[in-house]
Amino acid sequence: MPEVIFPLDSSKKFEDQEKVGHNRWHPEIPPVASVKQGVSVRIDCREWFDGAIVNDDSAEDILNAPLLTVHKLSGPFAIEGAQPGDLLVVDILDVGPIPQEDSGPLAGQGWGYTGIFAKTNGGGFLTDQFPDAYKAIWDFTGQKATSRHVPNVSFNGIIHPGLMGTAPSAELLAKWNRREGDLIATDPDRVPPLALPPEPQYALLGGVSDSDFDRVAAEAARTAPPRENGGNQDIKNLTKGSRVFYPVFVDGANFSLGDLHFSQGDGEITFCGAIEMGGFIDLRFEVIKGGMDTYGVSENAIFMPGTTDPQFSEWLAFSGTSVTLDGKQHYLDSHLSYQRACLHAIDYLTKFGYSPEQAYLLLGAAPIEGRLSGVVDIPNSCSTVYLPTSIFDFDVRPSASGPFQIDPGIGAPRASAG
Amino acid sequence: MPEVIFPLDSSKKFEDQEKVGHNRWHPEIPPVASVKQGVSVRIDCREWFDGAIVNDDSAEDILNAPLLTVHKLSGPFAIEGAQPGDLLVVDILDVGPIPQEDSGPLAGQGWGYTGIFAKTNGGGFLTDQFPDAYKAIWDFTGQKATSRHVPNVSFNGIIHPGLMGTAPSAELLAKWNRREGDLIATDPDRVPPLALPPEPQYALLGGVSDSDFDRVAAEAARTAPPRENGGNQDIKNLTKGSRVFYPVFVDGANFSLGDLHFSQGDGEITFCGAIEMGGFIDLRFEVIKGGMDTYGVSENAIFMPGTTDPQFSEWLAFSGTSVTLDGKQHYLDSHLSYQRACLHAIDYLTKFGYSPEQAYLLLGAAPIEGRLSGVVDIPNSCSTVYLPTSIFDFDVRPSASGPFQIDPGIGAPRASAG
Amino acid sequence: MPEVIFPLDSSKKFEDQEKVGHNRWHPEIPPVASVKQGVSVRIDCREWFDGAIVNDDSAEDILNAPLLTVHKLSGPFAIEGAQPGDLLVVDILDVGPIPQEDSGPLAGQGWGYTGIFAKTNGGGFLTDQFPDAYKAIWDFTGQKATSRHVPNVSFNGIIHPGLMGTAPSAELLAKWNRREGDLIATDPDRVPPLALPPEPQYALLGGVSDSDFDRVAAEAARTAPPRENGGNQDIKNLTKGSRVFYPVFVDGANFSLGDLHFSQGDGEITFCGAIEMGGFIDLRFEVIKGGMDTYGVSENAIFMPGTTDPQFSEWLAFSGTSVTLDGKQHYLDSHLSYQRACLHAIDYLTKFGYSPEQAYLLLGAAPIEGRLSGVVDIPNSCSTVYLPTSIFDFDVRPSASGPFQIDPGIGAPRASAG
Amino acid sequence: MPEVIFPLDSSKKFEDQEKVGHNRWHPEIPPVASVKQGVSVRIDCREWFDGAIVNDDSAEDILNAPLLTVHKLSGPFAIEGAQPGDLLVVDILDVGPIPQEDSGPLAGQGWGYTGIFAKTNGGGFLTDQFPDAYKAIWDFTGQKATSRHVPNVSFNGIIHPGLMGTAPSAELLAKWNRREGDLIATDPDRVPPLALPPEPQYALLGGVSDSDFDRVAAEAARTAPPRENGGNQDIKNLTKGSRVFYPVFVDGANFSLGDLHFSQGDGEITFCGAIEMGGFIDLRFEVIKGGMDTYGVSENAIFMPGTTDPQFSEWLAFSGTSVTLDGKQHYLDSHLSYQRACLHAIDYLTKFGYSPEQAYLLLGAAPIEGRLSGVVDIPNSCSTVYLPTSIFDFDVRPSASGPFQIDPGIGAPRASAG
Repeated sequence: MPEVIFPLDSSKKFEDQEKVGHNRWHPEIPPVASVKQGVSVRIDCREWFDGAIVNDDSAEDILNAPLLTVHKLSGPFAIEGAQPGDLLVVDILDVGPIPQEDSGPLAGQGWGYTGIFAKTNGGGFLTDQFPDAYKAIWDFTGQKATSRHVPNVSFNGIIHPGLMGTAPSAELLAKWNRREGDLIATDPDRVPPLALPPEPQYALLGGVSDSDFDRVAAEAARTAPPRENGGNQDIKNLTKGSRVFYPVFVDGANFSLGDLHFSQGDGEITFCGAIEMGGFIDLRFEVIKGGMDTYGVSENAIFMPGTTDPQFSEWLAFSGTSVTLDGKQHYLDSHLSYQRACLHAIDYLTKFGYSPEQAYLLLGAAPIEGRLSGVVDIPNSCSTVYLPTSIFDFDVRPSASGPFQIDPGIGAPRASAG
Repeated sequence: MPEVIFPLDSSKKFEDQEKVGHNRWHPEIPPVASVKQGVSVRIDCREWFDGAIVNDDSAEDILNAPLLTVHKLSGPFAIEGAQPGDLLVVDILDVGPIPQEDSGPLAGQGWGYTGIFAKTNGGGFLTDQFPDAYKAIWDFTGQKATSRHVPNVSFNGIIHPGLMGTAPSAELLAKWNRREGDLIATDPDRVPPLALPPEPQYALLGGVSDSDFDRVAAEAARTAPPRENGGNQDIKNLTKGSRVFYPVFVDGANFSLGDLHFSQGDGEITFCGAIEMGGFIDLRFEVIKGGMDTYGVSENAIFMPGTTDPQFSEWLAFSGTSVTLDGKQHYLDSHLSYQRACLHAIDYLTKFGYSPEQAYLLLGAAPIEGRLSGVVDIPNSCSTVYLPTSIFDFDVRPSASGPFQIDPGIGAPRASAG
Repeated sequence: MPEVIFPLDSSKKFEDQEKVGHNRWHPEIPPVASVKQGVSVRIDCREWFDGAIVNDDSAEDILNAPLLTVHKLSGPFAIEGAQPGDLLVVDILDVGPIPQEDSGPLAGQGWGYTGIFAKTNGGGFLTDQFPDAYKAIWDFTGQKATSRHVPNVSFNGIIHPGLMGTAPSAELLAKWNRREGDLIATDPDRVPPLALPPEPQYALLGGVSDSDFDRVAAEAARTAPPRENGGNQDIKNLTKGSRVFYPVFVDGANFSLGDLHFSQGDGEITFCGAIEMGGFIDLRFEVIKGGMDTYGVSENAIFMPGTTDPQFSEWLAFSGTSVTLDGKQHYLDSHLSYQRACLHAIDYLTKFGYSPEQAYLLLGAAPIEGRLSGVVDIPNSCSTVYLPTSIFDFDVRPSASGPFQIDPGIGAPRASAG
Repeated sequence: MPEVIFPLDSSKKFEDQEKVGHNRWHPEIPPVASVKQGVSVRIDCREWFDGAIVNDDSAEDILNAPLLTVHKLSGPFAIEGAQPGDLLVVDILDVGPIPQEDSGPLAGQGWGYTGIFAKTNGGGFLTDQFPDAYKAIWDFTGQKATSRHVPNVSFNGIIHPGLMGTAPSAELLAKWNRREGDLIATDPDRVPPLALPPEPQYALLGGVSDSDFDRVAAEAARTAPPRENGGNQDIKNLTKGSRVFYPVFVDGANFSLGDLHFSQGDGEITFCGAIEMGGFIDLRFEVIKGGMDTYGVSENAIFMPGTTDPQFSEWLAFSGTSVTLDGKQHYLDSHLSYQRACLHAIDYLTKFGYSPEQAYLLLGAAPIEGRLSGVVDIPNSCSTVYLPTSIFDFDVRPSASGPFQIDPGIGAPRASAG
């Protein structure tokens, strides 16, 4: 096993560990460890809410999830020799849930969760159609996930980190705050908000000194969106065997990561759409000197996905166009067309006995694929969502004999008030 | 070979054939043939510009492409027993280029083309960055495509029809015209336009009688966008072996199709991004009675893709977020984030010696995959574009040794004026 | 379409064509055409019995199949620049059944056949268990094969030539005749025979002159076995997109080919186990000068299979060891262990309602995979045979509910006397 | 984590553990644990030589490997409700190397080994060509294996148990001893031997009582070969996600397993061809009552392989026929034709700078595929071996430019005397 450079004790809170991570982006957060190129290291990761979401049949925890506290990031790690302008090469050697325990209280200890977030607390891709909070607990058996809240499906996990990235420079951070502030200013009271400004409350800043804390907390960027440094890209294909190339903006790159997922569908559509969990990841770093300019990668990661993802040979796919549910034509809006494709898939699955929320939770968590199929055929873009048919334990294909009827069981728990 | 129910003579124009197709959607276009369920039939298809684009080293034909004349559709075909409310099941048994000839003047006769359309004549996904007209000719060798205009790449075709669909009802047609007219009215002089209104000029309406022609031509919908009936979905995965389910809106379904592609990348990003060609397609139809309601499929096709597409095990992927090139933050705009991902891929490829236009043409034509990776992480969506590395005859991966330099050859022809 | 350098008229016998092929290997058979390197060419191929097997519900034709007349080979083709010691690179650009006709009398015209050969006329892999002649007709619909004689299965063809090879030198031919003669001499009256000696009767020798004919016919090798020159390898993975490297033994390489299959299982176990048909193949040749020595390929083809074969994600596999049916232990005999694995698969399929012969025919024709799983665990080798479950239209997996029962239909026709 | 029903302490010998396994097959070896159907359990497994092979640069340990002591099997486990005539369904939920340690002395602790066994001590598939003992150590980095003894290759492990099986009944055991004894009697002094008779020396029989020990040890079957009960099948595809169906011969089935491999090529051709290691496996059991008769599975396992094996899209394949190296023609001998295919692959790889032994070790350990391509074309069978090209860090394909030359490094260690 590689050396553990960021250990986590499952019985303690994230801020009470031997090494303390962070939940904001800022260039002044000091590295917790220095790593040589070419050496394999293991890093433990905490699930993004640090235990606030529990393994039960209620969604009150989702309704009240503490969004100001996320994401719990392991790091930063300084990579020896990395300098601004370089490309940081990150090999994901292995990644998995918390080992060695069975039924502990922490997501990753044999289980994980997916949530539909309330419109008043985060929202989601289809929040207009699904404004209330729901939860699904998934149990892990080997590499398979199943759920008492979403019956008749099981699928292999495609375990990956939702969030990995390098630290921004001061200039880059300022740019983020400026452009996101400009967006928020166009509709500052919107629910859910257009973007998330710096927020000192609940800021966790690793080894930032007391004297600097308040200033840094007031500047540091929230971790929700993906940005030039990678960040919360939620790319489900960054499974083990992947190689990712990040731009470097500060000396040492100061790489951080977290938000492990046991599985996720393309888009992570329920907001907390993946199967969230804590776990470990084994990484190895290299540096391509001057690679940002040499390869024209000044922002956003490029990557080569792993080759051991589950293989599916049969898919059922749904398409959507950029017309709203109430019939308004939008111009080449692929976000909308993917919403419509997902809604079509949900409508379809309800014909088999699933509640709409069960279907929505399933699309967030299962290894579905979302494609930008047509983006130029004015005025309609065409997006498609692909469901692997073998994750269902019944025949989910259309036929003359009509849909099989499942027993929806106890259903997905719903919170008391949206 | 199945019976040819819509033959085309490659030496004659599309409107001079034994059976004449159409280039607009209207419920009153009468079927050219009636087809029994369960019977295999062959249908010839003409390339979408009916020979206006030629195999040469100039892009003047792309600049002046007659957009009012498209698409050349074979059909409509009435399927016996199909009625409104049914689902029409379409099996793509086989599809390929025009057989039996070598180097004829018609796309599909051993070659095809991809165009970047000028901003003044159609535009494209990246028209702000690429306002001028360019062309690439692709030669077919067996199942492989190569181009003198885009060197050092070759790939297997994933042949598919860009456009298939059922006829709209009068009500559905009226709905299309209303909502698209509303959109156009918001900026009627935009270049390129927001949408395409009915256009009698160059309308081809199959067997519509002279007395009805002018009225029908004034109502009939243009074929550019995908809509409730399927239509120009440009889904590259509808290759042979696919099964597609279409809603039926009129008696007989009145199914039409055309716009065959030898290959296409997800999105068909250069507007005429696929490798356009004429050819043949073998289909078989069935009907699921009442299937629209039974399965909740009231609009847009659902489908099961074929299982014999080329297999790639290694990809190089690029990500983008919803920030414009000049730094403005947009809110969860997946169309924009896919544009940025594609621009990142183009920037990268130019480091190997390709011109930006060669890279753009390649992304339109090769079997790239476009994914909606993250759609909820406010304010940035994250889209990704995947390039199979094995289509390049050099090592396209980043490495410490820097990019290999290709010889870009004669380059992609550019039209005289944008 | 590439130039047709070996055309066949489906209405005429193989020996009455414009260009006449051959059915024996001999260095003195002169080339029918000369081909430049790098140029695509099309070659028509006749099914191996030249029309003796017909599309009906009788197996008398299989019982009496004229084994002395096979294989009908197109060629030889001289490749410009090829010399002994070179490697001949053959790219299979495309391959398919006879185009342009529907229900003609020749296999390849929309149908093909599989035969269990009688022990008295050829035999087969399991001839002790299946001594009598049976036949199955397969119908082609697009890329799919189905059979009225083997119901409830359908599968995509993996079309390939069963036989391709270069001409032997005189020395190599002499070596073949010597070693095969030695084997025959150990049991000259065996039924079926151990090997097939040169046989002047029915020898077809292309352009060999009358004065040389008798001598050449007495020396020329039969085409049944694969040998140093490639030959009848029956490798089902030589589908389109494959690249094959053959040793060159004579000037020009004198490449010949034939015995097209619409599909075949690994091993072609019923002797005529593939789905036999006539068709066309598009090839392109190159030469690696001195490649035999440079790469150590002095005999037997090496190859890179194509990448567009059907994709299966679920298989049901059977294993066997080198113990005979009556309990005798053999020493590490992988041929026997594969026989036992196939017999286990046949036993299993009969539990679903298939006759043993239907199951045997299916294993010969469908894209099953045969693996040498363990070859060192004395005294038992372990071979395995993999069946893709999705070729069955019922659930073929073992379960507590027991096997589904098919209607075996009219069954596979059996010849009157074994 | 599932309950560990068979724990192993890496610091102790296999026979000194809390629960003691066995290394022979006998119906009277009592179960070490009873397992309920449907419950996930974890079982630790020791590498087959229990630490006799060490991580160094010498092959003396391979030369002197204690073959009488193998295999170290975990079990037997009694499955509640299983009775003779049933099928035991075994789901492999997960399998991996020894967790939680880095560089310990036991194979599985971050490394594994492959050996070419000396002809005088075990032999191997190509023992006539490779009579001496060699060793390669493989290091595990995440899911990848690399070796200082076989440079320029790396590949994902396809971790699997080489040996799983149910206990034989007394009748079945007697049958084994009879038929294998009959074989040995045909050449009792052969080196290597034809088969392995019961051998009391070093017999480890779990909980067999002292009073029964000598009798049982004299009867118990060696574990080398696969047999009716499954056993040492060495099927590399029994990776996680696999479901295996075993015939049940005794009450409780008495299932045992061991011999974990980090990777293996089809055939495990070097005898100890896999990458041997200790580790863990998570299993779940079910029973199909009366399944042996219902499904016709009276012997040898049937199975459904997992779906997360590494995906390769490009292979280089070698073929062989049943002619010996010195030119003697054998009759349809697939064992011989696979030997010849493997020798061709070895010859080829030496042209790139590998020693023959390095190439042989590589073929044993890497995920190569061995196919029975043609088994009926008298007198030659045709076997093929497929190498995934992407496991090499250079271009291993034939080309006009000739083979790349690797640095073979320190080479594979060779033992002092054969």
